[in-house]
Amino acid sequence: MSKTVTIAVDVMGGDAGPEVTIRATLHFLKNTRDVRVILVGDEAQIKPQLGMQSAGLDDRLEILPSKQTVDMDEAPVHALRNKKESSMWMAVELVKNERAQACLSAGNTGALLAIAYYLLRTLPGIERPALITELPGSSGSVHMLDLGAIMDCKAENLLQFAVMGSVLVTAIKGIVSPRIGLLNVGREEIKGNYLVKEADTKLRESSLNYIGYVEADRIYYGDCDVLVADGFSGNISLKTSEGVAAFIVQHIRAGFEKNILTRILGLCAKPVMNDVKKSVDSRCYNGATLIGLQGVVVKSHGNADELAFEHALHVAYAEARTNVPQMIDIKLGQMLNGDS
Amino acid sequence: MSKTVTIAVDVMGGDAGPEVTIRATLHFLKNTRDVRVILVGDEAQIKPQLGMQSAGLDDRLEILPSKQTVDMDEAPVHALRNKKESSMWMAVELVKNERAQACLSAGNTGALLAIAYYLLRTLPGIERPALITELPGSSGSVHMLDLGAIMDCKAENLLQFAVMGSVLVTAIKGIVSPRIGLLNVGREEIKGNYLVKEADTKLRESSLNYIGYVEADRIYYGDCDVLVADGFSGNISLKTSEGVAAFIVQHIRAGFEKNILTRILGLCAKPVMNDVKKSVDSRCYNGATLIGLQGVVVKSHGNADELAFEHALHVAYAEARTNVPQMIDIKLGQMLNGDS
Repeated sequence: MSKTVTIAVDVMGGDAGPEVTIRATLHFLKNTRDVRVILVGDEAQIKPQLGMQSAGLDDRLEILPSKQTVDMDEAPVHALRNKKESSMWMAVELVKNERAQACLSAGNTGALLAIAYYLLRTLPGIERPALITELPGSSGSVHMLDLGAIMDCKAENLLQFAVMGSVLVTAIKGIVSPRIGLLNVGREEIKGNYLVKEADTKLRESSLNYIGYVEADRIYYGDCDVLVADGFSGNISLKTSEGVAAFIVQHIRAGFEKNILTRILGLCAKPVMNDVKKSVDSRCYNGATLIGLQGVVVKSHGNADELAFEHALHVAYAEARTNVPQMIDIKLGQMLNGDS
Repeated sequence: MSKTVTIAVDVMGGDAGPEVTIRATLHFLKNTRDVRVILVGDEAQIKPQLGMQSAGLDDRLEILPSKQTVDMDEAPVHALRNKKESSMWMAVELVKNERAQACLSAGNTGALLAIAYYLLRTLPGIERPALITELPGSSGSVHMLDLGAIMDCKAENLLQFAVMGSVLVTAIKGIVSPRIGLLNVGREEIKGNYLVKEADTKLRESSLNYIGYVEADRIYYGDCDVLVADGFSGNISLKTSEGVAAFIVQHIRAGFEKNILTRILGLCAKPVMNDVKKSVDSRCYNGATLIGLQGVVVKSHGNADELAFEHALHVAYAEARTNVPQMIDIKLGQMLNGDS
């Protein structure tokens, strides 16, 4: 028996605004049972978006009007001090007050981290929340963390990332003992900086299914289920991936634009290229979780379109349904007590 | 008036062995004036490769027989102690003895770093050599360093990388005041770890043309001429790029392999895809310099084919011709004396 889950959606966040976030949410609601949504945002902008689209969904849809929005380039500390009536703040507050089991925002990442950390606090034993997301892989996806929440990590942080990632993957993908990899510049023991070497020792001593170092050129091969990195290099790696993909796509487009013949070829090859695009489409992996908090908080990419935002809703739903924060709490407790 | 430059080539290094390295060298010699080459390696393997191919090149070609080779997975410290008669060691020694102005090897990177550091030593003021390579960019290429030579960098190292990269780009590309970027997780001042923040301060105080932070998704846009990173995240970024490119190519190939129709399409689109491949082809950027040494040492990718190895020869040639180590030495001296 699955109980109904409520997700608080900050509809004001992101580059495209309420039109995209609301359309995605309605589509998500139509296709997902046992879920309720609270739309948090400017009522005057929300209402016109609902109209016919929300027919039959009224009993699972609620609006919580907010007066402020957090700007995309606003300093986190400014948002923390001055935006207590913002859609972002109120969405997180719904999780804190247990009116929602998860919240989702496509807004300012730093502000969301600061507000969520302030309102929800971390689980006992976790210093600060990390960012984790699923990435595609040729033989199965990988969950990678940290992607930029903690800049100057200690080995202890990396161990915590491994525990949290492991629990999340077990909850979401049903893998009993997820394979944990540690991002490094080589596979041999002597390779790496002080941080990874120290973390490697800690991971070997842990009860986790640690498989050792994974090189960055192997991220998208699915060699492990959870890939652990410090927030700085994790972010560098993720953004490098985005940059390279964009660079290649740009060259392919230019290649097919060269002359009339290549343009015709481009049209013919479009279905093939669309298939390729789909299999490497970052939209199908949108939704990074702020893991380690006492509640589920998911961050959508700022430039998410409907498909991408809907995927992030599924991420929030899956983690709320399985209560990932509670599972992490239990696992951390077991590890502190020396159990498996 | 250009003087003749001699390059020592370790023909034994790399996955493909002397066949590829020698063919590439002969092709390079045919197309480049004012250059001599000393082939260092197993004479019995070199001689059969020359034959007709070396006709007319004899006066610019010399063989230096070696008895040992450094294995690709050999520990650097083992090579340093036991491989003084290896092709790699002897090629570097030719630079030390000033019989060559540059050397090139596709062998074991760690061993090459160790041997070159031991034999050539660093320039005054430089702690350890770094690895720098050219990368493609949509509006011009970028030289990135360090790519993995120094794992635990201090801010001082990053400043030295900036100076060395700047001098190299001036020498090779003729850019008077190269734009220096610092790899970071965001562009704003508050972003980043302690290391980049400290390096940012030092770079702002320097006389270099420092343009500030560059995010990893902008590496391939040519926003700067020199991109500075610590060896750990630089290596992670470079290897991530290789992995993503391979992942996308694999999906494109699979897309065109789906059925008879897509296969025909694939054949038709081949010239376009080859063009695309060429513009993002890492082989055309092969050749990473061990910068900061008292001599030019270039490392080719281990899996380099003829085209790639020949490009690395051009890198070695360009740096030897302009005497990059001497130029760095002068620039460092000026900076220490407070001049621009």
